[in-house]
Amino acid sequence: MSSEIELTGNDLAIDEFIQVVKEGKKVKIADKAYQKLKEAREYVLNNLNTDKPIYGMNRGVGENKDQVVFSEYFEKYNRNLIYAHCVAVKPEADIQEVRAALLGRLNTLLLGRTGIQPAIVEMYRDFLNYGIHPVIPQRGSVGEGDIACLSHIGLAMLGEGEVYFKGERIKAQKALDKTDLKPVNLGPKDGLAIVSSNALSAGKAALIVDKVEELVKKADLVYSLSLEGIKGNVSPLDKRVKKFRPYSGQKESIDRVTDYLEGSFIWQKGIAEHLQDPVSFRSACHIHGAVLDSLNYAKEQLKVQLNSSDDNPCVLYEDDDIVSTGNFEPLSWVLGFEMVANGLSHLSRISTSRTKHLSNPETTGLNRFLTPKMGDTIAFGTIQKPFSALDAEIRDLANPSSVDYNELAGDIEDHGTNAPYIMQKLEKIIDNIYYILGIEIMHSTQAVELRGVKEAISDKTCDLFKSFRKEVTFLDKDRPLSPDIEKAKKVIENY
Amino acid sequence: MSSEIELTGNDLAIDEFIQVVKEGKKVKIADKAYQKLKEAREYVLNNLNTDKPIYGMNRGVGENKDQVVFSEYFEKYNRNLIYAHCVAVKPEADIQEVRAALLGRLNTLLLGRTGIQPAIVEMYRDFLNYGIHPVIPQRGSVGEGDIACLSHIGLAMLGEGEVYFKGERIKAQKALDKTDLKPVNLGPKDGLAIVSSNALSAGKAALIVDKVEELVKKADLVYSLSLEGIKGNVSPLDKRVKKFRPYSGQKESIDRVTDYLEGSFIWQKGIAEHLQDPVSFRSACHIHGAVLDSLNYAKEQLKVQLNSSDDNPCVLYEDDDIVSTGNFEPLSWVLGFEMVANGLSHLSRISTSRTKHLSNPETTGLNRFLTPKMGDTIAFGTIQKPFSALDAEIRDLANPSSVDYNELAGDIEDHGTNAPYIMQKLEKIIDNIYYILGIEIMHSTQAVELRGVKEAISDKTCDLFKSFRKEVTFLDKDRPLSPDIEKAKKVIENY
Amino acid sequence: MSSEIELTGNDLAIDEFIQVVKEGKKVKIADKAYQKLKEAREYVLNNLNTDKPIYGMNRGVGENKDQVVFSEYFEKYNRNLIYAHCVAVKPEADIQEVRAALLGRLNTLLLGRTGIQPAIVEMYRDFLNYGIHPVIPQRGSVGEGDIACLSHIGLAMLGEGEVYFKGERIKAQKALDKTDLKPVNLGPKDGLAIVSSNALSAGKAALIVDKVEELVKKADLVYSLSLEGIKGNVSPLDKRVKKFRPYSGQKESIDRVTDYLEGSFIWQKGIAEHLQDPVSFRSACHIHGAVLDSLNYAKEQLKVQLNSSDDNPCVLYEDDDIVSTGNFEPLSWVLGFEMVANGLSHLSRISTSRTKHLSNPETTGLNRFLTPKMGDTIAFGTIQKPFSALDAEIRDLANPSSVDYNELAGDIEDHGTNAPYIMQKLEKIIDNIYYILGIEIMHSTQAVELRGVKEAISDKTCDLFKSFRKEVTFLDKDRPLSPDIEKAKKVIENY
Amino acid sequence: MSSEIELTGNDLAIDEFIQVVKEGKKVKIADKAYQKLKEAREYVLNNLNTDKPIYGMNRGVGENKDQVVFSEYFEKYNRNLIYAHCVAVKPEADIQEVRAALLGRLNTLLLGRTGIQPAIVEMYRDFLNYGIHPVIPQRGSVGEGDIACLSHIGLAMLGEGEVYFKGERIKAQKALDKTDLKPVNLGPKDGLAIVSSNALSAGKAALIVDKVEELVKKADLVYSLSLEGIKGNVSPLDKRVKKFRPYSGQKESIDRVTDYLEGSFIWQKGIAEHLQDPVSFRSACHIHGAVLDSLNYAKEQLKVQLNSSDDNPCVLYEDDDIVSTGNFEPLSWVLGFEMVANGLSHLSRISTSRTKHLSNPETTGLNRFLTPKMGDTIAFGTIQKPFSALDAEIRDLANPSSVDYNELAGDIEDHGTNAPYIMQKLEKIIDNIYYILGIEIMHSTQAVELRGVKEAISDKTCDLFKSFRKEVTFLDKDRPLSPDIEKAKKVIENY
Repeated sequence: MSSEIELTGNDLAIDEFIQVVKEGKKVKIADKAYQKLKEAREYVLNNLNTDKPIYGMNRGVGENKDQVVFSEYFEKYNRNLIYAHCVAVKPEADIQEVRAALLGRLNTLLLGRTGIQPAIVEMYRDFLNYGIHPVIPQRGSVGEGDIACLSHIGLAMLGEGEVYFKGERIKAQKALDKTDLKPVNLGPKDGLAIVSSNALSAGKAALIVDKVEELVKKADLVYSLSLEGIKGNVSPLDKRVKKFRPYSGQKESIDRVTDYLEGSFIWQKGIAEHLQDPVSFRSACHIHGAVLDSLNYAKEQLKVQLNSSDDNPCVLYEDDDIVSTGNFEPLSWVLGFEMVANGLSHLSRISTSRTKHLSNPETTGLNRFLTPKMGDTIAFGTIQKPFSALDAEIRDLANPSSVDYNELAGDIEDHGTNAPYIMQKLEKIIDNIYYILGIEIMHSTQAVELRGVKEAISDKTCDLFKSFRKEVTFLDKDRPLSPDIEKAKKVIENY
Repeated sequence: MSSEIELTGNDLAIDEFIQVVKEGKKVKIADKAYQKLKEAREYVLNNLNTDKPIYGMNRGVGENKDQVVFSEYFEKYNRNLIYAHCVAVKPEADIQEVRAALLGRLNTLLLGRTGIQPAIVEMYRDFLNYGIHPVIPQRGSVGEGDIACLSHIGLAMLGEGEVYFKGERIKAQKALDKTDLKPVNLGPKDGLAIVSSNALSAGKAALIVDKVEELVKKADLVYSLSLEGIKGNVSPLDKRVKKFRPYSGQKESIDRVTDYLEGSFIWQKGIAEHLQDPVSFRSACHIHGAVLDSLNYAKEQLKVQLNSSDDNPCVLYEDDDIVSTGNFEPLSWVLGFEMVANGLSHLSRISTSRTKHLSNPETTGLNRFLTPKMGDTIAFGTIQKPFSALDAEIRDLANPSSVDYNELAGDIEDHGTNAPYIMQKLEKIIDNIYYILGIEIMHSTQAVELRGVKEAISDKTCDLFKSFRKEVTFLDKDRPLSPDIEKAKKVIENY
Repeated sequence: MSSEIELTGNDLAIDEFIQVVKEGKKVKIADKAYQKLKEAREYVLNNLNTDKPIYGMNRGVGENKDQVVFSEYFEKYNRNLIYAHCVAVKPEADIQEVRAALLGRLNTLLLGRTGIQPAIVEMYRDFLNYGIHPVIPQRGSVGEGDIACLSHIGLAMLGEGEVYFKGERIKAQKALDKTDLKPVNLGPKDGLAIVSSNALSAGKAALIVDKVEELVKKADLVYSLSLEGIKGNVSPLDKRVKKFRPYSGQKESIDRVTDYLEGSFIWQKGIAEHLQDPVSFRSACHIHGAVLDSLNYAKEQLKVQLNSSDDNPCVLYEDDDIVSTGNFEPLSWVLGFEMVANGLSHLSRISTSRTKHLSNPETTGLNRFLTPKMGDTIAFGTIQKPFSALDAEIRDLANPSSVDYNELAGDIEDHGTNAPYIMQKLEKIIDNIYYILGIEIMHSTQAVELRGVKEAISDKTCDLFKSFRKEVTFLDKDRPLSPDIEKAKKVIENY
Repeated sequence: MSSEIELTGNDLAIDEFIQVVKEGKKVKIADKAYQKLKEAREYVLNNLNTDKPIYGMNRGVGENKDQVVFSEYFEKYNRNLIYAHCVAVKPEADIQEVRAALLGRLNTLLLGRTGIQPAIVEMYRDFLNYGIHPVIPQRGSVGEGDIACLSHIGLAMLGEGEVYFKGERIKAQKALDKTDLKPVNLGPKDGLAIVSSNALSAGKAALIVDKVEELVKKADLVYSLSLEGIKGNVSPLDKRVKKFRPYSGQKESIDRVTDYLEGSFIWQKGIAEHLQDPVSFRSACHIHGAVLDSLNYAKEQLKVQLNSSDDNPCVLYEDDDIVSTGNFEPLSWVLGFEMVANGLSHLSRISTSRTKHLSNPETTGLNRFLTPKMGDTIAFGTIQKPFSALDAEIRDLANPSSVDYNELAGDIEDHGTNAPYIMQKLEKIIDNIYYILGIEIMHSTQAVELRGVKEAISDKTCDLFKSFRKEVTFLDKDRPLSPDIEKAKKVIENY
């Protein structure tokens, strides 16, 4: 693995994106991209005195598109533009989200469609590489360009506002001083280029992709242990069958579960308790697979966003032209993420169903609520309430929100997607699911022990079993379980 | 184009599907498929006396999976199974939907995974080719196999219940008589093979794909005429720009709109009223493109459904085995269709926005509400209410419903998708959008005439203009507009 | 009961409203009200030449509030206003809904706040009394005045458009001829007075109140029979207990169920199968009571609407003034109806739960799926799918829609409630619930017979039992059940 | 005002409730109530050896209702019951919520329907009066009894778990030591009496009532200032008009706004900019009034909950009986609160509409975006994005959630309401609205200054103006506004 990632504007993979954002990998700007930046800038500077009205250059932005911006005021105008766009509210983006926004914007700038001055582009790179992370209030975007949030990056580049730097929250200017960076001096089109992008939403979305991929893998593992816990049927995993229903997500999940269960007692002929298990077991891979299919769609759509220009206007220096566009429109990938949320509500709910079955003697042949001793210990009698409550939240969070926009700016900004809110809801869904999976493990581990098959489960589910038992012991008699639930969630979240 | 379509079970394209369903094209069963059917049936008949419990063969279905079915009762049991599954309510499926269900089930049976008797398979073919269309009450499925609806096909094959035949609703037996078909004599596994499939939902979904594809094309055309109506900017269609944002749906829509506008006055330099148009104009292709992207996803996922086995159990005669599966799970494509509904709510809403702008002098430079004479004629002053009301319905219909299932059959059927309801809502969304587009055309044609550019618009928008004017004349003075709206809807719906 | 109802504008009860609308009771205008109408009209006519701008009189309506209407054009302007407001789409209102709109508008006109010419008011009365029912396309209102629909009443009064009269759909003029009525000759303010009201929505709402009251009573009765069917506990009905939880709806439901069960075997000590029944039984009256509480709220709020002026402007002839108002705002009662929809989704769902329990041996001690003979007859094995599907629809229909309005008329009409759509959804919810209750009765009657307590149930539940058995016989062996379900629904709907 | 509030179980007003919860007012138990407690306890102790099965006393709870609890295990069983019910997850309830839960449970215990030992009841009192506040994870209840949360109060009474005491989080036992309280020694029925109640949800609901009442008052005030800001019409406030539309909430809001505007220049004849203002101004009091009507409903229903028994079983010591009930059912008031959420979504949205109008020259006659100088300062050009984003969140949060429950405990707990989640969403809605109102004030104060009527506004709006200007100065040139928004929100939240 090379020590830094070279950015070109059009070939950044999501796993590379994640490496920069989460692991702090350094970035560099490809020479070819640098060349484009320079040419585009040169073109802009050569055309300042055109009498052609150009949005955001010699004309205002938004409803002010009818207002002339005179060239002697470029610096002031662009500064004002940054200021007037700093209109977002708490909560603030966390470090990863800030990095994602920086990287998202940096990469798409490299396509050379804004005419921004290259020094500002370098500052994105430097902020990432030095770890200067502007404080960005998160709520302020209707998901049609995150202009009210990204402005705060511009503010920090002016040496104003605050940033996180080496674990501290300090004045932006101080961070610039410590890293020998100079505040930028804004010129024509710079303000618009900084604010007008979906980089925050898209950055958050990339983080969601990473999280959901991990989540589904873990859900597969949790399901595997539960299948052992109920002594269920492996026939839905049958390799020969799946070819007659060739969904790629389903295949991925079946292959993974098959791998997770390698060596388990569960493969013994005739061992299953019942002829067929509940659908939450039987179709678990099919449902997880549906989530994966939807995620792959969202991911592919997002990849385009991360590697293309969402700029308006679009500088076509090669053709001596600057044209107004609708390229800021993020709907295609946003719809994908709303679908993922919907899919996750299914994944959540079948986990709750499995857990209910795990505590049901009819399914397991074990004691009700997995008590080690009926009449003495209540065990998992009441724990169905929290996971049901959390699942109800998820059902609610899966409602779509993208079309609930209002018409703004004298009705000319008459579309929106609420992209950042949708990502915020996905985060909450994921967090809730970890609780729900944690509770499922509380049950499956208990079932495995009660059934006396601890030694017979597969190596991979056994690893989970052991990691879990390090934190949460077998329930031999009643104890307050709220702390167990928090631990259970952490075990699987961090697994 | 060949006169009939050969079905194999795994290569039916959606356009072929539509030809059979809508245009009555005949079908034949491929020899290779026929061979599979026979082998699978033979295998089943040879294994009737196995002591291995097999779901739906020598054991009951659903919660009755623990009940033995003795071989001397196969006929009676399978008949009872059909009867007990006839539990659906109105409205009844229309002819196209019935044909879609027949074809959907027929094709997937050909994979040879049910062991059904081939004579029944032939009956599906004959029903399609003779036009025998069983009456199927539509509501009864939770979208996890349409067992309560598809049973009515089985009923008709028994010569019971009713069918539509040559435009009449008659007793099923009578239709069999007229076509020299014999009622089927049910044997082992036949009942389950008939009912256990998602063929109704999937068939409806295929019809939706067809409708949405057509709808988006028409929305592109309507938008094109509106763009001429406001004398808007064509720069968002710029070929050079779109390569920097390579979404395939967006490209398709831009290409189409460019084609629709070929020859229009709108391409003249400097003709646009404003520097930039509202987003509902500027990003129309991007938003229509997002719908297309989502539709393509749904379509791809559906194609797998239509060409794969959703049977449980799955007969693996080649391997001397029959195994329980979760292959009936339709979630992956159902999620896609819920995304399409969500996307269409955006397409709808931007049409309403464009129409509002068309009646706004600030956007058009024409009279308010497109009246030919201020103070004399009110024109389109109130028409915003109906399209806004219809759009609000669409917003509501776009809410997801797939996860709102209950746990059934002693909690073992603990997943659902409400697939048929989702398709039913999509139909309503599409119908409403045609009203909304119709009203948009009322405005754009009026604007074009008021502006005096009737001769200058493109050939293709002019075709729409003329078709429309045949039904709805220029609004030179106030008249009741409700009839105009109904006509406008029909013009674009049938265009 | 008097043969006609005297209307005053401020004391019309909802049951009187229903008598006129559903049963065709005649109406007369109170003398006092007539006096007000005359004074208000006189005031308007005396002030035509004022230079004070008056909305909808000497100024236009909606965004055209800045347009002068000259007095020589009053007739034409008002006719144009009616025309331009005829902008609604199908489906058309049914006869009861049309009558409700006529009566709703008539009564509130009697408050004398519009200055409408009295002859038009008389025409509302005559339309009701003669049974002249204008064709009104229903969808066209955003629930902030049903102006686009009510205009069609005005059209008929002009002798234009169509009406239903004595069972036929005929030209309006023809109906006027047959009843010796003269078309109205519109004067100042008449057009606005005709269209600007929530009378259609409110009329539909009054019909909903009537329907839900009836529905809850029937749900109480169905529950009563089901309680006998499972041999459940009557302790939740205990008179002594309910005083410690004094909700009025709960009390009403408990009293009613107690009455319905009078004389039943169920009151015998120690007869109950279990110590406690599922909550869907135990809290049924509490949940039905919650629906009643919410309904009473909606009803009280609606009563105000039906007996108050929603006119803008408001003619204060007593004070020599006409003032602009916001009185057309219907939100208060609309919110109440959205709450009722939400409440009904609970009533629906517990019915489905009870039915599932009725087919569960653990709850009933009877055979699974209430089969008379295990292994021979499947009985109610699959019927859970349709009621679950119908309940899922209800869950979806219970989503709120009132806030999903767009901003219209140059953004000055920037509020809406979607009232008519909400009523339309409530109708669908009610219809679906009758199916669900019908299926519950299929189960409870079967359970009562299997248990052999047919003779021991109460007189009132026995009446239901017998009415039901006239249409649907005991299920002694499997048969197609779709027809039974349709019959079951009708029995309870028409009970 | 007396220094402590005497509790009887049936006459606690919501404002008294708030005094105890928010202001720390002390409580005492009425003698009459104490007497009931003793008699009920005595009755329970005298009937321990009954062979009548009594839920939660000599039988288990939930699905374990079929399990015998032997009297020699009462202490252990009840301890286990508390333990096994400690199954909730973060976030933890805040101090006010904990106090609300303590007070809610205390008051209803006083009705004497549980047979709990009086020493435990005293401990609720002591916890309140000493300020011992058990740590309660908040999420764990499906809104059908908050058993999984309230258990943590029982835990603290046992001297286990943690509490907040005098600003510190300490071991429960330590707090007991410091206040000379002894851990309780659980006896029969004590565990159930502690956990089985809706006290947490109802307590949170009471806090919401308090907050919404305050919020609507403030929204009235903010609207008043905005009306001055646009120089709008006061005619919708006309005293003479409102009697023709007698909704009590509308009346309350109009009276309040009239009072707030006393002395303002706005009452001068002919001063209004337009004949009529947008509906968001014209019907503001009507819409706020609709919220008040819905709130009053919710409040009345909640008052019953706070003063009645939700216990199951219900001890009828007077009649020598203990009976199973469904009184734990909270649906009636929960529906009311979902209606309030829906109502607030309207209040929020019209605030955003007013703010858009405040920045629109067509409405105000002032500069676009309220800039003091066109072309120099952008002012409120982008701030529409955050309030629109926050309003979209509110739209989403107003979706109902009460019916999204799953069936638990072997399907016998087959109803839920998700009450705590609904309250949690209402909190978020309220918080968001304060941001939105804050931004409205930013605009209305700016408009007032630009218009030069600072001296002419009313005393009450002027107070708001001045309080606001202490924190946020006039926008004379562009500056980052994110900090202004946070301040604006705080000003109105704490006003």
